[in-house]
Amino acid sequence: MSGERMRAEMQDQPMVLERLVERFDEHVAAVRAVLPRPLAGVAFLARGSSDNASIYGRYLAEMATGRPASLVAPSLHTLYAIDADYAGWLVVALSQSGETPEIATVCRRLRDAGARTVAIVNDTTSSVAAAAELVIPLAAGPERAVPATKTVTAQFLAVAAVAAAAGSLPFGIRDLQQLPGAVRDVLDDFVAAEALAERWDQAERAFVAARGLLLAAALEVALKVKETTGMLAEGISAADLRHGPIAAAGAGAPLLLLDDGGPASGDMLELGALAAARGGQVARCSPAEDADLPLPARTQQALAVIPAAVRGQQLALALAERRRLDPDAPFGLSKVTPTS
Amino acid sequence: MSGERMRAEMQDQPMVLERLVERFDEHVAAVRAVLPRPLAGVAFLARGSSDNASIYGRYLAEMATGRPASLVAPSLHTLYAIDADYAGWLVVALSQSGETPEIATVCRRLRDAGARTVAIVNDTTSSVAAAAELVIPLAAGPERAVPATKTVTAQFLAVAAVAAAAGSLPFGIRDLQQLPGAVRDVLDDFVAAEALAERWDQAERAFVAARGLLLAAALEVALKVKETTGMLAEGISAADLRHGPIAAAGAGAPLLLLDDGGPASGDMLELGALAAARGGQVARCSPAEDADLPLPARTQQALAVIPAAVRGQQLALALAERRRLDPDAPFGLSKVTPTS
Repeated sequence: MSGERMRAEMQDQPMVLERLVERFDEHVAAVRAVLPRPLAGVAFLARGSSDNASIYGRYLAEMATGRPASLVAPSLHTLYAIDADYAGWLVVALSQSGETPEIATVCRRLRDAGARTVAIVNDTTSSVAAAAELVIPLAAGPERAVPATKTVTAQFLAVAAVAAAAGSLPFGIRDLQQLPGAVRDVLDDFVAAEALAERWDQAERAFVAARGLLLAAALEVALKVKETTGMLAEGISAADLRHGPIAAAGAGAPLLLLDDGGPASGDMLELGALAAARGGQVARCSPAEDADLPLPARTQQALAVIPAAVRGQQLALALAERRRLDPDAPFGLSKVTPTS
Repeated sequence: MSGERMRAEMQDQPMVLERLVERFDEHVAAVRAVLPRPLAGVAFLARGSSDNASIYGRYLAEMATGRPASLVAPSLHTLYAIDADYAGWLVVALSQSGETPEIATVCRRLRDAGARTVAIVNDTTSSVAAAAELVIPLAAGPERAVPATKTVTAQFLAVAAVAAAAGSLPFGIRDLQQLPGAVRDVLDDFVAAEALAERWDQAERAFVAARGLLLAAALEVALKVKETTGMLAEGISAADLRHGPIAAAGAGAPLLLLDDGGPASGDMLELGALAAARGGQVARCSPAEDADLPLPARTQQALAVIPAAVRGQQLALALAERRRLDPDAPFGLSKVTPTS
C-alpha cells in the first residue's frame, strides 16, 4: 500500500516522544554540563527539515536566556572559510540522518572556533554525532519513509531540552508528559486531514501561516506537503504574508492558519478574516472545537508545534493518497544529500 | 503606461547608489561611534523585502567580525514580551517606509534591553528612525511604485556600511565606486530579461537558487517576481533545493541560478546540471558571457547581490509586461503594513 512506511513511522511518534520525555531531565543535565559560562548565545546548525526544528529551537533558546539566538549560515564556514570566533556560544547541530557532511564539517569548525557543541541525531554512530562533544540521541529507530516524520517531532522535543538547559521555559515536565497522549489522539483522527485534502483537491499551491513559536510548524507542514505532493506549499510568517503574498492567497491558493490559542491568536484570526474577505479559502489548525485540523486542548501552547507538525504529516499523506502519489517514493528526494 | 513608476524608480538606482557610495565612509564612521565594545554581535531587525537585506547584512557582519550574527524574531519581543538582554549587541533596524510599527516597537525594546541601535530607513522623520540612536538615510527619494526597488538595493549597500564598521570586508571603496556604473550597464540591457520572460511564458511557478552571499539576492528576486506577477516564485538556498524541492523544479518549474563566480560557483554549476538532467529548464544569472541574465564582470563578488537584485527587478517587470499585469498596482499589496 502506498504511503505505508510514512504512515507506520507517523504511528511510532507517541512511543518515540514518550522515550524522549522520560530522558528529558537527563538530556537537560547533560547539556548543562557543556554549557559555556557565561553563555553568549545558542546557535543552531542544520539544513532542510532539520532547519525547521532549528527555528523552534532558536525561539525557545532566546525565550529561555533572553540573549540573541542564531541560525548558523554554513556557507560562511565552508565556502568562505571565515575566521570565526564562537567563544561562549553553544552550537546545536541537527541532522536526521546524522550524515550530512556539511553539518559535520561546520560543527567541527565551530568547535575549533571556541563553541561548545551538541549534536541532535538519530544515529549516534554518525559523522555529525562524532563531530560534537555531546550527543542527544533521538532514539526514533530507523527511518525508512522518505518524508521525515518521527525524527522531526523528536527534534522539536530535543531542542526544547537544549533550551531548558540554558534557561527557563513556560512548560514543565507535566506538560511534556501530556505530549505523547496528545499526539496519539491526533493520530487517531485521520478524518480531519482527509476532509481538508478533499477541499484542497484542485489546489496546486497553498500557504501555511503562523506567528511566533508555531512558525516552525508552518514551515514544516508546508515542506511535508511539498515533499509528498509536489504542490508549491509555502510556509510563511503571518506578518510577512500580510506584507505581500496575501494577494496570491486570495487569488486561489488555500491558506492554512496554525494557531495555538496563545498570544498570536488575535493576529491569526484577523489574517484569516482578511484572506476570507478576498475570497480566499481559509482553514484552521487550532485547539478551537470547530478547527479544520483540531489540536489537543491539553497541550501547553509553547509545545503545540509538535501536534501541529503531526497534523501537517496527516494532511501531506491524505493529499498524496487522493492524488495517487506515493509519499514514500517522491521523485527527486533522497535521505542524505551531501553538501559541502 | 503600465509599470511606468517601477521602471522610473529602477532607473534612479545608479544615482541613489552613487550618493550612498559617496557617504559610505561617513556612515561607517557614524556606526563605529555607536558600536558596543567589545562587540557581542550584530542583529538585524526587519520584515518582508527588508528581510532580504538583513540576510545579506547577517552574512557580511559575521564575515567581518567572526562573531555569530542574528536575525531578530520580532514576535519574541512583541507577542511574548520576553525579558531580553541585548547588552553588547548592535541592532540594525530596516524598514523601507520607516513606518512598520512592529519594527519601531521592537527597536525601542531592544535598546531598552541594552542594545545599541541603528536604523536604515528612507524617511529620516519616520517612527523607525525615531526609535534608533543613529540613522543611515537611504536618501532614495520617495518610492511610489508598490514593488520596492531602489530602496532595496540601497539597503544592501547600507548594511555593507554597518558590517564594514564592525570589521573587515573583502571589498574596498574602489569596488564600491564601480557599483553605480555596473548597475547602469545592467539597466541599459533590458533585452536579456525580456528573453527570459518569454521562455518563462507558461510558468506559474519558479525557483531562484543561490548559495552564500547571493542567497539574499535569490530571495529578493523571487519576492519581486511573486509581487509583480502572482507567480509562486521561491527563493531558496541551492543546498536546500537539492535536499528536497528539486523534484518540483525538474517537473516543470523553471530554475534561475544566481552565481557570482565566487566560491559557490562549483555548487551552482553542479545543481544546474542536476536539474537539467531531470528535464528542468535552467537559466543563469552570472558574470559568464553566455549567462541568460549577465552580471557585470567588474563587480567585486561580495557585492554582486546588488546587480543581481536589479536583474531580478528587470525579470519581474518583463514578466508582468508579457502577462499584461500592472506591477504598480498588484492586487493586495500595500506599502506599509501594520504588524504588532
